[in-house]
Amino acid sequence: MDLHDLTRSLHQQNDSKIVMMVADGLGGLPLAAGGKTELETANTPHLDALARRGVQGMSIPVLPGISPGSGPGHLGLFGYDPLQYTIGRGALEATGIGFELQAHDVAIRCNFCTLDGDGNIADRRAGRIPTEQSSLLVERLREIRIPNVEVFVEPVKEHRFVVVLRGEGLGGNVHDTDPQATGVPPLNPVAADESSGRTAHVATEFLAQARKILADEPQANFHTMRGFAARPHLPTYEEVYGLRAAAIAVYPMYKGLARLVGMDVIGQAQTLAEQMDLLEQHWAEYDFFFLHYKYTDSTGEDGDFDAKVARTEDFDAALPRVAALEPSVLIVTGDHSTPAFLRNHSWHAVPTLLVSDCCRTDGRTAFSESESRQGGLGQFEAKHLMTLALANAGRLGKFGA
Amino acid sequence: MDLHDLTRSLHQQNDSKIVMMVADGLGGLPLAAGGKTELETANTPHLDALARRGVQGMSIPVLPGISPGSGPGHLGLFGYDPLQYTIGRGALEATGIGFELQAHDVAIRCNFCTLDGDGNIADRRAGRIPTEQSSLLVERLREIRIPNVEVFVEPVKEHRFVVVLRGEGLGGNVHDTDPQATGVPPLNPVAADESSGRTAHVATEFLAQARKILADEPQANFHTMRGFAARPHLPTYEEVYGLRAAAIAVYPMYKGLARLVGMDVIGQAQTLAEQMDLLEQHWAEYDFFFLHYKYTDSTGEDGDFDAKVARTEDFDAALPRVAALEPSVLIVTGDHSTPAFLRNHSWHAVPTLLVSDCCRTDGRTAFSESESRQGGLGQFEAKHLMTLALANAGRLGKFGA
Repeated sequence: MDLHDLTRSLHQQNDSKIVMMVADGLGGLPLAAGGKTELETANTPHLDALARRGVQGMSIPVLPGISPGSGPGHLGLFGYDPLQYTIGRGALEATGIGFELQAHDVAIRCNFCTLDGDGNIADRRAGRIPTEQSSLLVERLREIRIPNVEVFVEPVKEHRFVVVLRGEGLGGNVHDTDPQATGVPPLNPVAADESSGRTAHVATEFLAQARKILADEPQANFHTMRGFAARPHLPTYEEVYGLRAAAIAVYPMYKGLARLVGMDVIGQAQTLAEQMDLLEQHWAEYDFFFLHYKYTDSTGEDGDFDAKVARTEDFDAALPRVAALEPSVLIVTGDHSTPAFLRNHSWHAVPTLLVSDCCRTDGRTAFSESESRQGGLGQFEAKHLMTLALANAGRLGKFGA
Repeated sequence: MDLHDLTRSLHQQNDSKIVMMVADGLGGLPLAAGGKTELETANTPHLDALARRGVQGMSIPVLPGISPGSGPGHLGLFGYDPLQYTIGRGALEATGIGFELQAHDVAIRCNFCTLDGDGNIADRRAGRIPTEQSSLLVERLREIRIPNVEVFVEPVKEHRFVVVLRGEGLGGNVHDTDPQATGVPPLNPVAADESSGRTAHVATEFLAQARKILADEPQANFHTMRGFAARPHLPTYEEVYGLRAAAIAVYPMYKGLARLVGMDVIGQAQTLAEQMDLLEQHWAEYDFFFLHYKYTDSTGEDGDFDAKVARTEDFDAALPRVAALEPSVLIVTGDHSTPAFLRNHSWHAVPTLLVSDCCRTDGRTAFSESESRQGGLGQFEAKHLMTLALANAGRLGKFGA
């Protein structure tokens, strides 16, 4: 019996509201042993006030020691076991640029590359050609036509672009054509299972046409294909939790991840203040709101401790507008830690705060790594957070008699 | 490898004694944020003395956010994964009235109902006829005879009663005959799998005879059948732990649950003092004692905070008699929380105390939600408690070389 078998059979309706605020990469590290983390350094009076009314714990994104990407990090927070539900690289790349994958799509990450006179790969990234240049090449690749298949070609950045093939009977399991080496020719697309034979055939045709179109380019005279992936089939929030859910995010990746679990993506907010506007405007329409804040992660990845502190304070300053809506359950968490010290996503457990009328407070007076370590929720895998949210909202019936 | 594969291969014998005291619904909540829980309010000098000698933790009955019924709550404490072993509704109802289910039994929850002149259900509960009246009808249904099947009909309360069919080849998967609506006729019993075809046939015959017997009743002129369930097949304490186990409980439900895992149910105690008498009298005969105390749950369900405090103090007062027996391992826990604030079973973790000579004490000086949050056992799923008990009793060998 998996978590969603439980929630499917136990969820019930009421008029409660749940808000999940995800400060991306929230958890951190001190710059020197014994020092304070970014969150501990930041002045966060509103988070601390919520801590006194709530219960804290440490959320383990996937498993101890596992540093997740944005995909598994968010799937865990959404209550989808990130080891059970995986999002193929191509599908995640397409999601990240805001491409709305449909049921019969296969998404492929592509790299422009440079072939030498013998057809061997001389540069796997075509000299990292600038985005403006590769975008023009992407335009030309859109001329490619394949019978009975709709083809989308979308630029990403520098030498990277995405191809999406849409049509019946296209499986998502095809081996990469990038040989991960120079001095050898690119590989042909080879199906890794029976249902992907047609996909390999279509990809071969695409590459043949692309080779002609790109033939005279000085650098990007061909491309490789990697990470073939069908749209992942995730049950929806409506089905597994009985929740009408909305996502309020600035960046395409997080909108895309939310769409994959059936959330409505609302608005075009560019700032946290605009996200708050949307939250207020749509308050009556949804049971659950996922609100994504990016800058605690991006500053961490930049290794900029002080900027992460400042961005954490910006996040804190937005909380009174959320609290004023009096959500039945308010959660503040992150999809993983991104310590500026490591300049990268990390495995460290993420301080997580849940506030409700019946949350069993834990005597904590601030919100931080060291406080949440002593919190009432203990350490728990992120995938359990949604069940806790539903329980605190009175939306889960009793299991067994 | 499940938990019992481990304990089966590792358990060993010695003359230790384990006592598990289950205060039903033990965990609680403050009535107002920042206040004390029932257990924190209660004056519990003996629990606090044990806390100084023991180690505490927070037991999660099933999974975070899941509020269990008595069945899964106790199966977890007994070390049986409550998501792996489920007890069908009919079997639990029969267990709850003290009916001893046997291997070839199928138990069915029945409701007297009222049919109108067209044979449609006018009232799914026959006007909730009083228990005295329905008991007389149950007597009459005992006249029903079905070839090669032993039939038991047992009253429960008001319009509810239980039918148990005993015979070879009776599967437990038959759909409910209650259409969950009025103005339509009851459904016929339909088997949900091949092995339950005979059960559906026998149930159909039972209903035909019942319809004749009840035909002239003004209100309860028929009945529905729901929650068909075979006796759950649980491995026994003797087999998985090597323990001769005894249950000392007042209420039939908990005696029944203990029987399902092979415990001997001893005595007919009506009070905690009588339960203590039984514990002392049978001390030499068993390795493991499960002692169930109901009133921390029933007062919680009543929403009576003060009564729960008082009943917790009564429980505490009984502890010196247990401690005087010097059990090798003494555990105090609950099958779930029942905060008076919620008037219901809840998902909150349950304060749990384990005392043994080698338990690694944790410096706690009282027993409560807030103390156990800081305890040495951390947060753990209830299903791991029995393994901890066996280990502390020196009854588990080393895993691997």
